[in-house]
Amino acid sequence: MQNFNTITVIAPGLLGGSILKTLRKKSPQTRLKVYARREETRLTIGEEQLADDICSTLEDSVKDSDLVILCTPIQVMPEIVQQILPVLKNGAVVTDVGSVKAPVHTALSPVLKGKAHWIGSHPMAGGENSGIESARDNLFDKAITVLTPTPDANGETVNKLRSFWEMLGSKTITLTPEIHDAYVAQISHMPHLLAAILVNAVSPESLQVVGPGFRDTSRIAAGPPDMWVDILKANNKAVISALKKVQAETQRALEILEQGDTGKLQSLLADACKKRRSI
Amino acid sequence: MQNFNTITVIAPGLLGGSILKTLRKKSPQTRLKVYARREETRLTIGEEQLADDICSTLEDSVKDSDLVILCTPIQVMPEIVQQILPVLKNGAVVTDVGSVKAPVHTALSPVLKGKAHWIGSHPMAGGENSGIESARDNLFDKAITVLTPTPDANGETVNKLRSFWEMLGSKTITLTPEIHDAYVAQISHMPHLLAAILVNAVSPESLQVVGPGFRDTSRIAAGPPDMWVDILKANNKAVISALKKVQAETQRALEILEQGDTGKLQSLLADACKKRRSI
Repeated sequence: MQNFNTITVIAPGLLGGSILKTLRKKSPQTRLKVYARREETRLTIGEEQLADDICSTLEDSVKDSDLVILCTPIQVMPEIVQQILPVLKNGAVVTDVGSVKAPVHTALSPVLKGKAHWIGSHPMAGGENSGIESARDNLFDKAITVLTPTPDANGETVNKLRSFWEMLGSKTITLTPEIHDAYVAQISHMPHLLAAILVNAVSPESLQVVGPGFRDTSRIAAGPPDMWVDILKANNKAVISALKKVQAETQRALEILEQGDTGKLQSLLADACKKRRSI
Repeated sequence: MQNFNTITVIAPGLLGGSILKTLRKKSPQTRLKVYARREETRLTIGEEQLADDICSTLEDSVKDSDLVILCTPIQVMPEIVQQILPVLKNGAVVTDVGSVKAPVHTALSPVLKGKAHWIGSHPMAGGENSGIESARDNLFDKAITVLTPTPDANGETVNKLRSFWEMLGSKTITLTPEIHDAYVAQISHMPHLLAAILVNAVSPESLQVVGPGFRDTSRIAAGPPDMWVDILKANNKAVISALKKVQAETQRALEILEQGDTGKLQSLLADACKKRRSI
């Protein structure tokens, strides 16, 4: 199976920068091209020698590339794809690292059809720090990357992309864009919002007694607000559905506490303990 | 200021065991006595030489002791104090490591008055693993220990107890029992219940895409259910109040999502981000 000889990362931040660093380490023969809008980012990439071609136009960055990885906010991806379409190599693979897949798939798939292979990717890695300055060459170690090919995707291309993410260190699973969005709404997007809700709900004075439990539970609330606004908007319906389940469970917990029902409280905590330990 | 020459730990689990290990390391001259109901625990303590006197009766364990530390569930503390009262050294200091302070203070303070000094302690350390097998000699490093003396407490005794917890590695703060309980309801007890609610609310299938965010947010839900039932019952009213604030914030977040109000969503996340980063 042929690898990707030339790879382009568009708009490297934490994820794109970590892809570059990991490729430099694990696949030094791969030619790396990058597009970054900000001069500061281009300088950083140059200083750290993270790419062979550092481009200030999108068109230059994708020329001759076998794999193009979009790392922009998902809202601007359609516009970027329209711009690179004329210069994209025939048969290139285009993927992204966005946290929401169905709307991106709906927007990009028909545009790229016949010219390039479009398959969405979502590496479940990151953290509360963003930007290329937080990038590292082990970010994908043991992380899960979800690939979201639709049934019409070319099998060999899916395998190549899967090998790519596994070479970076992640485990891969394949889901449809819609199922992916429903799962991450529950496991990532709603919990982010819930962490923000928790932080906003506690009194400033009570923060005097913060311990490791609260630190962990609330950690993700420190993530970049703008990025999370985009994600929560793009996956709006599934997040609402997931948060309504939490709302119903919260109401049930309140009733248990108000009734002082020890048996039901024990069951609630024991169920959660067992499920959490199974992860 | 005189130190405690002889210290008794009653019912060492994660916290009591960590107190023993830390004292052995940082204060090898202190005589350590311990009471453990289970033979297995007494054998472990013997093998690891964590105490000088390993007792199978409460009475033996507190004889001649200058500081007695109760590490049992808070519900059984009154009964234990009744049992040790006749043999307790005059002027001894009695404290505990319980997570709820007002009900314990109300129960123990009048019983011990005139015989020993009662001051509650709450070292905010621990984790999802319990039992003496998880004990370690750095558990209290940089942890916060809350002391909850009431205005009638002897100032010198409060200072001695504060020095004790600082010697173990923790930072100390002083709060009334009632204020302590209100703060920890918000920062520890309600978040524990919320983590359990979150875990119970997500579908088993979605756990396929678990990443570091969900792992951290839900970690405390793996804590021992029996211990947490006791804590949530003992601090029932304050936990209900804290969870109702989360419920109100959740309702507000749902309305924002349903209205697609980007500005309000941005504010909600930005407020939480700023507050979380300030910790």
